[in-house]
Amino acid sequence: MSRNTQWLLKSRPQGEVGRGNFEICQADKPAPGPNQVLVRNIYLLVPPSMRLWMDEKESYFPPQPLNQVMMGITLGVVEASNHPALRPGTYVNGMGGWQQWYVAQVDQLLPVAPHPEIPLAAYRTVLDVQGLTAYCGLTDVCRPKAGETLVVTAAAGSVGSLVCQIGRQLGLRVIGVAGGRDKCEWLRAECGIEGVIDYKSEDVGARLDALCPKGVDLLFENVGGPVMDLVLDRINTSSRIALCGMISTYNGGAGQSSRSLMQLVNKSARMEGFLVLNYMDRYAEVVQKLQAWILEGRLKYRIDILDGLEQTLEAMSRAFHGHNRGIQLVRISPEGP
Amino acid sequence: MSRNTQWLLKSRPQGEVGRGNFEICQADKPAPGPNQVLVRNIYLLVPPSMRLWMDEKESYFPPQPLNQVMMGITLGVVEASNHPALRPGTYVNGMGGWQQWYVAQVDQLLPVAPHPEIPLAAYRTVLDVQGLTAYCGLTDVCRPKAGETLVVTAAAGSVGSLVCQIGRQLGLRVIGVAGGRDKCEWLRAECGIEGVIDYKSEDVGARLDALCPKGVDLLFENVGGPVMDLVLDRINTSSRIALCGMISTYNGGAGQSSRSLMQLVNKSARMEGFLVLNYMDRYAEVVQKLQAWILEGRLKYRIDILDGLEQTLEAMSRAFHGHNRGIQLVRISPEGP
Repeated sequence: MSRNTQWLLKSRPQGEVGRGNFEICQADKPAPGPNQVLVRNIYLLVPPSMRLWMDEKESYFPPQPLNQVMMGITLGVVEASNHPALRPGTYVNGMGGWQQWYVAQVDQLLPVAPHPEIPLAAYRTVLDVQGLTAYCGLTDVCRPKAGETLVVTAAAGSVGSLVCQIGRQLGLRVIGVAGGRDKCEWLRAECGIEGVIDYKSEDVGARLDALCPKGVDLLFENVGGPVMDLVLDRINTSSRIALCGMISTYNGGAGQSSRSLMQLVNKSARMEGFLVLNYMDRYAEVVQKLQAWILEGRLKYRIDILDGLEQTLEAMSRAFHGHNRGIQLVRISPEGP
Repeated sequence: MSRNTQWLLKSRPQGEVGRGNFEICQADKPAPGPNQVLVRNIYLLVPPSMRLWMDEKESYFPPQPLNQVMMGITLGVVEASNHPALRPGTYVNGMGGWQQWYVAQVDQLLPVAPHPEIPLAAYRTVLDVQGLTAYCGLTDVCRPKAGETLVVTAAAGSVGSLVCQIGRQLGLRVIGVAGGRDKCEWLRAECGIEGVIDYKSEDVGARLDALCPKGVDLLFENVGGPVMDLVLDRINTSSRIALCGMISTYNGGAGQSSRSLMQLVNKSARMEGFLVLNYMDRYAEVVQKLQAWILEGRLKYRIDILDGLEQTLEAMSRAFHGHNRGIQLVRISPEGP
């Protein structure tokens, strides 16, 4: 009988997460009970905010319990089913965790019907949480008006790159801040974002001044820290800031905090945090819209896949340090049967 | 002929403002031109944010120009008038600056008609910008619902103490954070605020836990820095934070920044800055409501007056360090003729 490799969180990381925080164990492959299904994990999404789940402090999820399989956002395939609604061979999104197989109730799973011209991995990335995050964060939190200037941080990131492109579709002037020549070039050449700032090699403040001569109306913030402050220093009256994440703080960097909040007062500006969980009722509508844009070539994305569950920590490290080239996934098992 | 004592900003302060940043000069008493009026300043309001006007960086006002009379929010009396709409003897609110007399256009002045049972000084404090700030910030930015828990920082301050009391009128559970036994006692005994935390002698986090067992729904923030973070750590989902000011940062304390902004994401919370200038169209309505509450004994306030324009820096220092006992004013000249 197959063994189920599982990663259990043994201790809470201080700073960056490491191998020593986990125990790898080989459990029995689970068997589905009445009305349950057995799912084989194929893709594990590696968002930087997964680091927060490991802290004792509650984030947008309750803290990951110690000595249990690490939580994870996965796409898998039903291998065995005791429920008529989900037949074997169906792709499903679920919270499958850092392991090879898991058993779930049908209502914990979302069936996925991939379009033949779109890779399966897109359905746990751009056509899932990250697309929904980008679309709803930009439209519902920022409430943009055509012609306004939008700045996006981590602009080449999984959410940021979608926000940039959705912003263009909505008629915004889009300025993306990303790290490194490759990412900036990809944003320009592939995604069509003209105003790109490389924070690793350019003076972000001076470039913002040059690219936003009329100031900043909207900020879609993924990073926090000094770059956010440089943008806040340039916001216009009644500007709107969607706070999607603050990757610069996830490893406990207290020095990465904001010193420019007074700008919110000076400019009567609104900074609003949001979670994609707030928008699950719009899932089908938004995914359908984004899928159409992809098929029309109006929405580009990159997915960066590492092979093997044992690569998950490497994937997290890449995502943190910006070494990934696209939305970071780990492939736990092959797509085929 | 009388001389007009004027304080001119000579240099931009580093950190706290001092005498060396000013030149005092004796100008001629000005004469009103056609359609103008001559105003004698009586009260100068000393809000801590006045410190920000002195910086080169734009705040909610353009920066105070060097070598010109320092801007100031004043209440005065018309001494001579070349305009039929404002007769001599009329009290007026204006931006009269740090000086004894000034000349203004009629449309730069707001006539004040004090109620006989209310001190004149109230009309440049509680029944003016600070009342409007408190009322509109709480009602329009926080959008409170009866029964919610509101935390107010600088709760014994000029705006904070009004917010606390208005919150009670609106059926909120109000927790005020203030510094020192006297202020806390005044909030309890005079203003009827039961939940008071003395940040100078108490463990603010532990006291918030005790006083807000269901978390914090609303925050009216005047201070910024570590106390704000302790409140943010305890906000509920969909909480609303009105950012009124950040006194802890006005002297350039960069270390006073926030490390808890990720809570806005975790809790889908909204932090919104505002300026009283946004609400000038509600001035008459709000002042009338607050005046009625004062006459009914439902709204208490304290005004702390220092005598003489030369006391202005001392007044600023008191306001910064929390040594004032009430809304800080400087009396430039007597109320009478």
